[in-house]
Amino acid sequence: MGNRVTQLFNIEYPIIQAGMVWTSGWRLCSVVSNAGALGLIGAASMSPEILKEHIQKCKAATNKSFGVNVPLLYQGIEKQMQIIVDEKVPIVFTSAGNPSAWTKQLKQHNITVVHVVSSSKFAKKAEEAGCDAVVAEGFEAGGHNGREETTTMVLVPLICEAVKIPVIAAGGIATGKQMLAAMVLGAEGVQIGSRFAVSEEASCHINFKKAIINASEGDTLLTLKQLTPVRMMRNDFFRKVQEAENNGAPKEELEQLLGKGRAKKGMFEGNLAEGELEIGQVSSVIKKIAPAAEIVEEIWQEFKETLSRPVK
Amino acid sequence: MGNRVTQLFNIEYPIIQAGMVWTSGWRLCSVVSNAGALGLIGAASMSPEILKEHIQKCKAATNKSFGVNVPLLYQGIEKQMQIIVDEKVPIVFTSAGNPSAWTKQLKQHNITVVHVVSSSKFAKKAEEAGCDAVVAEGFEAGGHNGREETTTMVLVPLICEAVKIPVIAAGGIATGKQMLAAMVLGAEGVQIGSRFAVSEEASCHINFKKAIINASEGDTLLTLKQLTPVRMMRNDFFRKVQEAENNGAPKEELEQLLGKGRAKKGMFEGNLAEGELEIGQVSSVIKKIAPAAEIVEEIWQEFKETLSRPVK
Repeated sequence: MGNRVTQLFNIEYPIIQAGMVWTSGWRLCSVVSNAGALGLIGAASMSPEILKEHIQKCKAATNKSFGVNVPLLYQGIEKQMQIIVDEKVPIVFTSAGNPSAWTKQLKQHNITVVHVVSSSKFAKKAEEAGCDAVVAEGFEAGGHNGREETTTMVLVPLICEAVKIPVIAAGGIATGKQMLAAMVLGAEGVQIGSRFAVSEEASCHINFKKAIINASEGDTLLTLKQLTPVRMMRNDFFRKVQEAENNGAPKEELEQLLGKGRAKKGMFEGNLAEGELEIGQVSSVIKKIAPAAEIVEEIWQEFKETLSRPVK
Repeated sequence: MGNRVTQLFNIEYPIIQAGMVWTSGWRLCSVVSNAGALGLIGAASMSPEILKEHIQKCKAATNKSFGVNVPLLYQGIEKQMQIIVDEKVPIVFTSAGNPSAWTKQLKQHNITVVHVVSSSKFAKKAEEAGCDAVVAEGFEAGGHNGREETTTMVLVPLICEAVKIPVIAAGGIATGKQMLAAMVLGAEGVQIGSRFAVSEEASCHINFKKAIINASEGDTLLTLKQLTPVRMMRNDFFRKVQEAENNGAPKEELEQLLGKGRAKKGMFEGNLAEGELEIGQVSSVIKKIAPAAEIVEEIWQEFKETLSRPVK
């Protein structure tokens, strides 16, 4: 199958492994790219030096396309972007910020730039900023999310109508059937996070991976809406946040409760009670830990089978 | 196209027009059924006498299948159910309550019973109670909704795996593409609300219909989570509810704020500021008021076209 997304990234399948904090380093990224999809290194949890190391190791492990995801809401972006340019990373996904901040500069270095959005308004801004594609990320998605709570089923058609550049769907997608559903809505590719978080090559803690495959419906919710809304697992930390929000806690109190290093504590160190466990709602669909290449293959096979018989 | 849903209801297209409070009376219901889909009378806003009148007028206007939707959380259900049995209504959709409460009694009168659920746990309960099908209603849907906030993209595959009876998808569906996406996920039919709320035959107020077609992303949100979660439009009344919730208002205060007749005020009397405007997130996709038969035809044509070429 060839479409604008496979052509844009020079990949075999229009499947993108999401760049995930504390989870997607060079190992996961290179294995996914070698399997015919697009791997992304998640830069958010990396110092510039660590990012450089991951990029270099990734280049040594694959000669296929790969990319780096850079959330724009953290500090130290300049150094990360300089490394990305110096190391000639071919593809950058930006998220959680203004697409006009970096797109032009990156494109001057022939880097393909994709921006992650949660509304058609920001999709248009990304297109105007010169992005090559957008990721339409629905309410279901793990981690940072939009305030409008628009789900993938509603968001993808809206964004496909709003822009001419290719749309990649994200949020609620872990299987080949969900991939096809998103593409029926008009997307030309999908970005998948949670399913790759439970790959053997993901660098997050095994406790976190087990929590994902054991998660049921309702085990993730969007919270911290007064700061930046985040979808995370319900645990002791989550309940403290909810309680504070229900009691009308001011922003400062929530910031203090969040503190520093919560995401690392949960996802990297495996503290399931006190850590911040960012993951998608689709966790409830995911049942096993597997090698990333097998995950790519399984999604693609199910996609093809469903495409050959889309309805019962 | 024939499948278990078209066979169960004896209809041409696997499209169900949702039973909607103050919106779907005999006129909308009969027109939809005559157009080859399944119309439902929304009993929630009707006294037993009014319900009887609507059923009788509907029977006079169509000889096709039609049904009544009965939310189980209101009082006076017994009288409504007696009328449904006496008038030989062939199909009942129950929602917002325990499926074991009425299913057996209705089925003894050869009535086809479908229950609306927002989780696979309740889907299994509905199957065990003897329901003929379930509606899997995602977080996107208007009106009453589940606490787990599971979206259609995630919920439909989970429920299809949990039960053997046919699954009808609801929430976030207004077009033929969205219908096909839901069916790719495993549903054998779709229930559509918001799109039919802006039909010419819908009995809700023209102000409300205009507000729906003018709605943008983020203009509906799930609220009243401490009582029964409801998706409604953001208006003055909504903001009062949000403010009370953000200030940690107790349940009683929220109940008092909600008061009586809010839904009627908004949806039937057209008071857009002070009424409760229950509608789906998919409003942002809907752009015109049209005859219901035309809506059925448009959805079905787009469904067929997309099925013939599901991906770009």
